[in-house]
Parts: sequence; C-alpha cells; structure tokens
Amino acid sequence: MSSNSFGKLLTVTTFGESHGPAIGCVVDGCPPGLALAPEEFRADLERRATGRSRFTSQRHEADEVEILSGVYQGRTTGTPIALVIRNTDQRSKDYGDLLDTFRPGHADYTYWQKYGIRDPRGGGRSSARETTMRVAAAVIAKKWLAERHGVRVRGHLVQIGDLVPRAFDWDAVETNPFFWPDAAMVEELEAYVNALRKSGDSVGARVTVVADGVPAGWGEPIYGKLDGELAAALMSINAVKGVEIGDGFAAVAQRGSAHRDEITPQGFLSNHAGGILGGISTGQALVASIALKPTSSILVPGRSVNLAGEPVEVVTKGRHDPCVGIRATPIAEAMVALVLMDQALRHRAQCGDVGAVEPRVPGRVE
Amino acid sequence: MSSNSFGKLLTVTTFGESHGPAIGCVVDGCPPGLALAPEEFRADLERRATGRSRFTSQRHEADEVEILSGVYQGRTTGTPIALVIRNTDQRSKDYGDLLDTFRPGHADYTYWQKYGIRDPRGGGRSSARETTMRVAAAVIAKKWLAERHGVRVRGHLVQIGDLVPRAFDWDAVETNPFFWPDAAMVEELEAYVNALRKSGDSVGARVTVVADGVPAGWGEPIYGKLDGELAAALMSINAVKGVEIGDGFAAVAQRGSAHRDEITPQGFLSNHAGGILGGISTGQALVASIALKPTSSILVPGRSVNLAGEPVEVVTKGRHDPCVGIRATPIAEAMVALVLMDQALRHRAQCGDVGAVEPRVPGRVE
Amino acid sequence: MSSNSFGKLLTVTTFGESHGPAIGCVVDGCPPGLALAPEEFRADLERRATGRSRFTSQRHEADEVEILSGVYQGRTTGTPIALVIRNTDQRSKDYGDLLDTFRPGHADYTYWQKYGIRDPRGGGRSSARETTMRVAAAVIAKKWLAERHGVRVRGHLVQIGDLVPRAFDWDAVETNPFFWPDAAMVEELEAYVNALRKSGDSVGARVTVVADGVPAGWGEPIYGKLDGELAAALMSINAVKGVEIGDGFAAVAQRGSAHRDEITPQGFLSNHAGGILGGISTGQALVASIALKPTSSILVPGRSVNLAGEPVEVVTKGRHDPCVGIRATPIAEAMVALVLMDQALRHRAQCGDVGAVEPRVPGRVE
Amino acid sequence: MSSNSFGKLLTVTTFGESHGPAIGCVVDGCPPGLALAPEEFRADLERRATGRSRFTSQRHEADEVEILSGVYQGRTTGTPIALVIRNTDQRSKDYGDLLDTFRPGHADYTYWQKYGIRDPRGGGRSSARETTMRVAAAVIAKKWLAERHGVRVRGHLVQIGDLVPRAFDWDAVETNPFFWPDAAMVEELEAYVNALRKSGDSVGARVTVVADGVPAGWGEPIYGKLDGELAAALMSINAVKGVEIGDGFAAVAQRGSAHRDEITPQGFLSNHAGGILGGISTGQALVASIALKPTSSILVPGRSVNLAGEPVEVVTKGRHDPCVGIRATPIAEAMVALVLMDQALRHRAQCGDVGAVEPRVPGRVE
Repeated sequence: MSSNSFGKLLTVTTFGESHGPAIGCVVDGCPPGLALAPEEFRADLERRATGRSRFTSQRHEADEVEILSGVYQGRTTGTPIALVIRNTDQRSKDYGDLLDTFRPGHADYTYWQKYGIRDPRGGGRSSARETTMRVAAAVIAKKWLAERHGVRVRGHLVQIGDLVPRAFDWDAVETNPFFWPDAAMVEELEAYVNALRKSGDSVGARVTVVADGVPAGWGEPIYGKLDGELAAALMSINAVKGVEIGDGFAAVAQRGSAHRDEITPQGFLSNHAGGILGGISTGQALVASIALKPTSSILVPGRSVNLAGEPVEVVTKGRHDPCVGIRATPIAEAMVALVLMDQALRHRAQCGDVGAVEPRVPGRVE
Repeated sequence: MSSNSFGKLLTVTTFGESHGPAIGCVVDGCPPGLALAPEEFRADLERRATGRSRFTSQRHEADEVEILSGVYQGRTTGTPIALVIRNTDQRSKDYGDLLDTFRPGHADYTYWQKYGIRDPRGGGRSSARETTMRVAAAVIAKKWLAERHGVRVRGHLVQIGDLVPRAFDWDAVETNPFFWPDAAMVEELEAYVNALRKSGDSVGARVTVVADGVPAGWGEPIYGKLDGELAAALMSINAVKGVEIGDGFAAVAQRGSAHRDEITPQGFLSNHAGGILGGISTGQALVASIALKPTSSILVPGRSVNLAGEPVEVVTKGRHDPCVGIRATPIAEAMVALVLMDQALRHRAQCGDVGAVEPRVPGRVE
Repeated sequence: MSSNSFGKLLTVTTFGESHGPAIGCVVDGCPPGLALAPEEFRADLERRATGRSRFTSQRHEADEVEILSGVYQGRTTGTPIALVIRNTDQRSKDYGDLLDTFRPGHADYTYWQKYGIRDPRGGGRSSARETTMRVAAAVIAKKWLAERHGVRVRGHLVQIGDLVPRAFDWDAVETNPFFWPDAAMVEELEAYVNALRKSGDSVGARVTVVADGVPAGWGEPIYGKLDGELAAALMSINAVKGVEIGDGFAAVAQRGSAHRDEITPQGFLSNHAGGILGGISTGQALVASIALKPTSSILVPGRSVNLAGEPVEVVTKGRHDPCVGIRATPIAEAMVALVLMDQALRHRAQCGDVGAVEPRVPGRVE
Repeated sequence: MSSNSFGKLLTVTTFGESHGPAIGCVVDGCPPGLALAPEEFRADLERRATGRSRFTSQRHEADEVEILSGVYQGRTTGTPIALVIRNTDQRSKDYGDLLDTFRPGHADYTYWQKYGIRDPRGGGRSSARETTMRVAAAVIAKKWLAERHGVRVRGHLVQIGDLVPRAFDWDAVETNPFFWPDAAMVEELEAYVNALRKSGDSVGARVTVVADGVPAGWGEPIYGKLDGELAAALMSINAVKGVEIGDGFAAVAQRGSAHRDEITPQGFLSNHAGGILGGISTGQALVASIALKPTSSILVPGRSVNLAGEPVEVVTKGRHDPCVGIRATPIAEAMVALVLMDQALRHRAQCGDVGAVEPRVPGRVE
C-alpha cells in the first residue's frame, strides 16, 4: 500500500494539492450495486467546508464532486470509483510573502526536509484541503455501512479550549456550527471564539465519534486490530495529536474492578472499552476521541527562519480559523467509516458473512 | 499486508499462541551485513519478562531465542530472519475452570464472536505473550537504528494509577522494576502495588517513549505519516486505550501561540509537537505516550456469562499482575523502533540516503 | 495493494472505463525533482493510439494528458502525480446491439459473472483503453530510469500470425506501423494484414521487450522476483496468454550445457537467461516476450448467448483491428519500465544505492 | 507485502535456507474451522521430495512438518498457522570447493551482486529447498478449495527435453516418477533420463496444471487478474522461464475465428482461453503451463569466475538431478492452489459468497 492510499480491501487513494488544479480520490474495492449519485456528496462536504460559518475560516470552496468512473446507470459496478473536485480558489498570491519562510507548527519545514522542495501554495499536499476527499470517499462507506449493516457513524465536539458541554443531546449537534451537543451553550461558544479571533490566537479541540450498530467480530488481530487501524486513521488527520478508544487516558487511574465491562445474559453493563476488546468489536457502540492542536496560522507574531536560515518574524495575514478542530468532526467520522467498511469486507473474506449478519449469541445452538 | 504482519519495508510477521508449542516471528527486509547473535535478544526479553520481579506476574518464561534463518556467519544476509521461542510453560490445566467462561475485559468474548472458536489456553493468540516476539524483532531494529543513524529509543513509566513522578532522571529508569524515572519514589510505588495486590484489584499506567537522534524527514504523507504509524503500532499493544504524540490531549486547552514550536537559526525553542509536523520528523526528539488500562484478570469477583449464555461469577485465581502497564515499557519501545526502521527504509527508497545522513540546513547551499 | 494498483514503492493506480467521462491514474512514490511536462506524454501515447495507422483500429482518441497534482514548477514534488485524459469518444450507441449479448472471447461474460452488472460501453473497465494510463505512467518511469540509471526500455514485434522477421535492426522498429525490426518485410506485412481484414478475421502476435543498462542486483527473492513481477505485469495486459524470460519455452528442449550462461572475467558469454538469475538481474540485457491472442471482435459470425440465455449469433460491426498485438508493444514496454523503477526503489531501500550505482566486480576490493 | 510473502488475503511467508537449521512458513488468513493434522502434509511433500526416485537427485530429506500455531484441537482457529521443518542434512562440506566460485546459471552470482554476501550452503535462500514450504502451505489451500468449493488442482509433465506424451490419461500420472500421463512411455523416459545422467548433462521440462471446479467470477481486474497472479506465482518457482494460460504461445499463429471460445446455452464449445477471460475465471477448467530450464548443476565442465575475478572451471560433483522440472509438478500445483484460495477469499470480500456458491446462469431470474 502506497502512502497516499488507505485501507486494505476498501482502498482510498487521494491526490492533489491545496492550490493545484484539482483534488481527487480513487475508491477501490466497493462492492457492486450500491446506488450513488453526485449530489449525495454535498451534505458532508458542506459540513466540512471552511466557509460553513463565520466561526471557521472564510475561504470559499465550491466543492462539486465529479464521478469519473465506477458508476454506471446510478450504481457502483465494482470497478474503481474516481472522484474529482476542481480547485476554484488557486490564488497563489495570498502566500507570496511566505514563499521563503517556514511557518512555526506547520508541515512546510518537514516537507522541505524530506523532499528538498518547497511548494508554498497554501500548504500544498499537507493542507487540510486533502481531507475533503476523505469525506467524499466516506460518503460511499457510510452509505454502504448503513444499508448493508445498519451502522451509523456520528461525531460531535466534546471540548474546545477549556470549555466542555454541560449536557448531551445528539439532536443538538447538527443545529449549531460547533457540532456541540449542548444547545444551551452555543451563545457562550460564539462569544468565546469571537474573543479568540479578536486576540489573533487559537485553541485546540476534542472530538468524539460514535458508531452505532457495529456487529461483534469486526477487526483483525494482531496488527490489523480495529482500534489500531482507527488510531492510524484518526492520527492521520491534520492537527491531531492524540487518539483514545473508550475511556482512553482516563483508564490509567481506574481500578480493574471499575474498568472491565461486566457481562450479563442481557448484555454488557458498561462500555469503558469503547466497543473493542482485543482489537475486535464487542457489538457495543464504538467510541473514539481525538485531540486537535490549536491552529498554527495565527495573527500573533512568531519567530521562525527562512530558506536562507535567517531569523524572521511570521504573522499569518487575513482572516484565520481560531479552532481547526471544529471542522474535524466530519473528517473524523469519515475515517471511522472508512476503517469500518474495510474491516467489514475483511471479516467476510476470512469468516464469511455469518458473524456480521447474524451475531453469535452465547447459549444459542448454531 | 496480512493482519499478523507489521511494516511495509521492514515487515515483521508474528505467530504463536500463549500455550501452544512455540511463538515466533519472521523479520523480512533487514539490510544485509548487520551483526546479530542469539544472546543479543536476552536483555530486552528479560526487561519484558513477566517473571522480572514480584511486582509483575510470576509465570516464569525461559525465553531463549533460536535464529532459524537469515543470519550467516554472524551477519544478516538480507533474507528473512526467523526467530522462534519454545513455550516451556504450557500448563493448560490452569485454565480448566475458565474453559466455558468469558472473562470480562478480555478478548476471549470477541475472538469467539469473530471465529466461532474458543481457545481457552491463556488467551491463545490474544495473550500478551505475543508481544515477546515484537520485542525480539525490535532488537534488530534498535541495533540497526543505532549503528546506521545514531537513533536511541527509550521508554519509562509516567503514571501508575494516580501516582506520577516528582522528578525525572533517565539514569533512574533501569534501576527499578517500574521503569520509573524518580528513584526516590520507588519504595512508595512498592507499597502502592503491594496494597493493590492484597486488595485483589489492579490499576492502569501511562508509558512514554522517546527516540533521540531521529533525523528530520522521516515519515510519509498522507496515510503513512510517522505519527499515524506510531499510533497504529502502539494501539496494537495489549491493553492500550490511548496514544499521544508530544503534548497530546493537553493541546486541546492550549493556545496556538503557546503550542506552536518557534524556530530560530539555532533550532526549535520547544517541542510541543513531539518531534513530528505533518507526519514527518522535525529532527527533534520523538515523544509518544500511551495509556494502558488496568489488568482485567483480578481476584475481585465479576459478573459474566458462559458459552451456554448463563450468568456466572468470574474470579481469576492464582497470583496476578496488578499493573500490566509496567512491562509495556519495552514493548512500546519495540513498536517505536520497528516503525522508525521501516520509515527509514521507506525514506531512502523515495528520497535516497541524503536526507537521512546529511540533514538539510536552512541557508546552506546544497 | 488494491487490484487496480500496481507496484510496491512506485504504485500506479488506474481508473476509468472505455466510454465513461475520463480515464486516469495516480502515480505514487516517484522521487522528487524529476522534470515533467504534459507534452512528454505525447510520443508514447501516440505510439499506442489506435488511430495510428490503418493497420490498427480507427477509433480516434485525442489523448491529452492533464497533470492534476504532484508537479510544481515543472518538477515532481514527491507527492502523488494524478494524470487524467478525458474520453472524447463516448458514443454508446455503437454498442447498442450488444447490450444483451456476451461476445465470445471477451471479458463481458466474466465481469457479469463476477459483479452481476453489465456495462456494455465498449468493454467498460476491461477495455484496452485502460492501458493508455499505463503507458502514461510509464513515461515517468522510463524517464527516471534513463536519467538515474541509464536504463533504456524498448520493444518490437517478433511474430504476427506465422510471419517472423528475417533480419533484425533496432533502427527499423520505429519506422513502420508494425514495430517490425525487418524493414524489408513491411510491404509483405501490409499485404498480410490487409488480406486478414478483408477476410474479417484476426491473428495473434508476439512482442519482445529489451531493457538495456539494468544493473546487476535488482529484484527481490522469493515472491518479489524480477521475473515474477514482470510475468504478472505483462500477463495483466489485455489479450496476453503467455510470458517468457530469455529463451522461455525453448529452454525445455535445451541441454544444461547449452543453456547455462558461462561467465568469464570479461563477462557472460551468452544470455539464455534473459538477464535474470534467481529472480535478480545479472547486469545483462533484460529480455521478456509475450504472446497475444488474436482479436476476438471480428466480422466472422460466432455463436454465443444473450442475458436471457438464448443462443445468438455475434458479428462485430464496423472497422476492426485484425491484430491487437501490434499496439501492445508500447504497453509491454510500459509494464517493464514500471516494474524496473519499482524494483530500483526497493533495491535502494534494502541495500542502499551502492549496488545500483557502482556494480560489484569480482576481484575488486571494496 | 514483503518479498518473502505471497498472497493478499491468504498470505504465505516462507523463511529458511537450504542448509540452515530449519525452513518454515506462516500461513495467515485461513478461515477458522478447517480440520488439519500434521500427517496431511506427508503425501505432497513426498511427491516433491528429491529422494522420491532415482530419477531425481538423491539427497534424502526427512521432511516432518511441525505445526507451531494456528491449530487447536485439530482445527484451524483463524490465527496464523506456522509450519516448520528441521533441516537434517546440513553438511556444508559438500559445498566446500564452491565457496568462492560462482556457478553458471545459478543465483549465487546475483545474490552476491545484490547483497554483497556469499552464502555457499547449497544455494542458501535461492535453493529449491524453499519450495518445500510452498507445497506444505498449499496442502491447506488444496483442502479448503476442495471442501468449500469442490475445486481439484492437478499437474502433470507434458514435455521433457524433446519427448512429449503420445496419449493422455490422468490415472497414469501418479503411477510413475515422471508425473507422465502416458504410461506406455515410462520405460522410454527411464532410458532417456539414464542416458542423460551418464552424459553428465540435463534437459528442461514443461509442466501443465489443471484446476477443475473453479467457479466463474474469481479473479480481480486490473492488476489482480487471475492470470496475472498465476503468472507471478508460477514464474517465482526456481528454474521457470515461461508461463502460459490456455493455448499460450500457440495463440500467436491462431486466427480469431478459431481461438475465441464460442458459447451456447449448454456451455462453452472449447477452452483455448484456459478458463480465464479478462483476468476472471469463466467456470471452465483452468489450464496453466510452465517451462523449466535444464538443471544448471551438471557434470559437464563450464567456465566461470571466482570471487577474486579469476577464471575457473566449474564441475558439480556427486549425483545430480538431470531434470529439475520433474519435481516441479507438485510445486506448480501448490502455487495454483494458493492463488485460487487467495482469489476465492478476495471474491467473497467484494462480491459476497453468492457468485462463488451459486453461479449466475444467463436467463435465470435472480
């Protein structure tokens, strides 16, 4: 698997730079017969789009997906599905003054170290623009998971800076621009983010993704564990610095008698494990969380060097995004969905469809 | 890549069950010419061994590595290196009363869901016994990284239950059975763990691994990012529920002006990023941390079900390991070393040896 | 690696159907710094194009490659290179009467068996149209191999029906539409193919590809052998039914004393092995040949069935291609070049650049 | 996938050198529940063994397979199956005089070029000894294919030197040491091979493998074609120089009207395609043939060089194998079986079990 491809049996290969002519992806391995139309990509791309609200960055991306292959008469054929989005916003001039400067906290320094080439156009390949295609590819995965297995993948914010929700309601999440599960706090959040923007600074965020309906038995030991692949998938999202499954780091201070999820004939009594034991799904809700660092491109001046090795002061001009973590929500959902569909296909390859469709129940004769 | 294999160019395939005849691994892709002798595996295997001290479980494993292939006249030949360790402790009788019972917090329930087969012998393939071969394989990676690139990979505990070190000294780490960096606290730790054992309960732990000497430029965007692969590698260790790079979840509450690591002609001014930007190493120390859940096999009774679906009470008999996280330290080092060597080989495939051996320095004419 | 991807370190993923909106590919793993311009793709695409002469099929494809990513200021950046060609000839009406009919010798029957879906548009994904992108991708590989290692990959026909060349001259190959190395026979070939066309029938062909300048040491034992990967690559070309390395099937009747290539201090005395021993290049010219079956779409009526399972008579209308093997020459070159570049990168990953740049010479102190 | 691994979903990793302590393999991806006992490996290993008759080389290998993992209570568990065979015949002294000499036609020259290391022990990793583990691994694949899909994989010789069978009878194949389908010719073959041995020379051979019962629909376009993967698998066998599917190179001189296999409601009327169209199985018998070069280790002296670059004369002492192609028969069967099982699992991953178990029949309503 090449480094711009993701997944073993559902393989997504993305390509494209932030300010090149286009970005795109090839989705290989989707079963035949899934209904798919270009307009189905719109909702999730809109959720991810930076222009969604004034609380995220203002670059307008008219993201229209073109399906170049793999779909015939409205259904997938089993051959690779290529999706392309033209970049309509290729103004390289915005980045003119950063041509020779490494921005602190950005990948431009490490890309230059690796490749010896500097592509200053909006971060080039390292830009979060690339994640657009992950969201697009995952529209296919989400639909297949829902239709074939009744799986639903949803995400929400659980922390921004030091603010955390005081209540939880799934229905609230999609009614505010913060994917925040506590509707009563939205005004407070708006004030918080506006103050942050005025100060020219940024904060981090924490996002949780929950997948309901995942059957027991998905995930492959030892190096293809469901949690291992989720960790890789989620850590590959721009700005992510941490991944947790279930209780995550809170488990460090827990007692075994409290952490282990007891089992009764009626099911598990708790879900500290986040739906995964030994790398394989338990049949409970799958719960994964990520930490996103604060935006590095801010108005507060910072020290850096240029290509000549001279000290420079860097200030990111124009409007900025005081919390990149907000729009990571649909991206995190996308990665979870892609991992799950890949694992579903791997499970039926080795174990057949049985485990997925009709779960084993202790005590039932098979 | 099959699910019992790890790595793209340095590929480690492990096999074996906890109480089967043997465990082993095949290390494929190691460059020729590396000196390698069976006795070099001893030190790290001893560090990982459960019988190391009375603070971890007392099963005695006489882990003698046999090199079956890939080494001729004391040097690697470039062909696959097979390592095998015979299991000398195959007493299945210990597990007799658990034959039909699912242990809360264990993989036996999910393995049965996936495969429809129950192998009660000490956890079978899901046992931490498998990690012995990761440590063995990583002896090769650690040596190659040190000789070829001057990289050193070391780990230590940073939390057990709610105890954290009050001081830090690398020299202290290997002088106590807890891989604890604060020698003054060792007695306190002993008392803490002894009390825990007496109560029949367990706690979690947090381990940090640091790799010094990693050159800038290792790691592959987008889905082969250095942090993404570290996350997969570390999450694949038994009992791990969270992975952090650099500041990890602490970054959520940080400001961008504080988090981003400023650069001067003399180098970075901080390392909140943990040595990775955009998935590629910065040339700073690489820092990764993991959360390990508390041991699930404890003396405190717990509710569960058996294969017949009937409610049962489970108690793990015999001596138990009140904190599995302690011995995860060398295992976490192993996974970091395997990822780094794999990435080093991938880097020289695409970019040649230049970036690794002679780092690019801003301002220097090349 | 997904099934529409090829190569381990230089990974080419192709997509697109014969009569869909576009075909394309993503080339992942190309080292940074290679000069690359859209017009460099023209020559080889023209050599492959079906409209090249009246001796191959007359469909006109204006194949203009657009580079969507991976190239900045005329040089590769190390990120994935996406190439797209719009299909300008999407007339599905041509295939209207074949909507429900399986054509003997074609993939439409097996695609329907596999996927349960029938895409009658010119063969869909199974069309030789897909090989256009292989040729495009290999333009990059050929250039890198030439610039970095001095390798030249060339092909020619060695048999069409029962005609074989009576003389051999590399200079003749590109001067006639048959890639035929014997200029004196071109008129004879024209008459032969014209007669074939008039009869409405077709013949097979045999193509040989020679790579000069391949250093000793490329190729990976055991399942990544250079000849094994060439075999997979060449057999994956449409209509190929056989692959030979060096003497190939002629070796069956040879004596060992005649076949083995003796070695002297001045080099090998023969090249029956075709430049490969034990799956690794010897430093001699690499020689591979393929057998292509006769075109299945012919004017001679044939028996088949339709989707309803009823017997039907199939006749391919319009102009046809009496020998698909002719234009396989640049496609075969392409696959050889892609395999070689992939192996070159794999070699330097495991063994460093030494073996490639400075060959080992027996007797020389290193 | 590393270069000592084979297969995508059924992944076989082999290790070991001809005269090292042991050879072995890890079979990863086998579905759970397949009955498997150590004695089941004997028959095919015996068929492959060099000591089988006086018509192949006389080295005696007591090949006893030990199952190290993946089988519990006589059934596969879904975890990796490790098989090991101890080398009982490690006499390095036999090769003492070849320590510094490259044998013409052998891999020792290219291994030295690649790795810079010389392991003279019977060819080391490049020895045909490695194929023992392919045969062992394929015992599992053959059994699974037979039980799950009713597939039978069989091979036979079709040419040795310039001798070809004058009759064909499957029942004759296993009654003579040549896997020869014409019992009446066995005496003639014995005389032929004896004369060859006396002359100290060798000849090549041609082997055909037939798989009956393969359902339509197996094989993945474009780079995972069934014929492409067979070509790679078969070309990876020691001494193989050519691979054909169906009519193979004979198709070059055929007319399209003769080659294409016509279809009727009762089935195909011929099988020139060898059971594969467009890389996917047609439901007919799968037919593949290979060319094996004559043994390079012969008593006839040959010119070569030593490590010092000096000219030397090489003579292989002791008994030799006048036709290595004979025992390639079970090895070729093994590679075909491994490819088929891998493709069967890949098919059910993408397309479900439907296509495999209940073939689509034109005209039948589904």
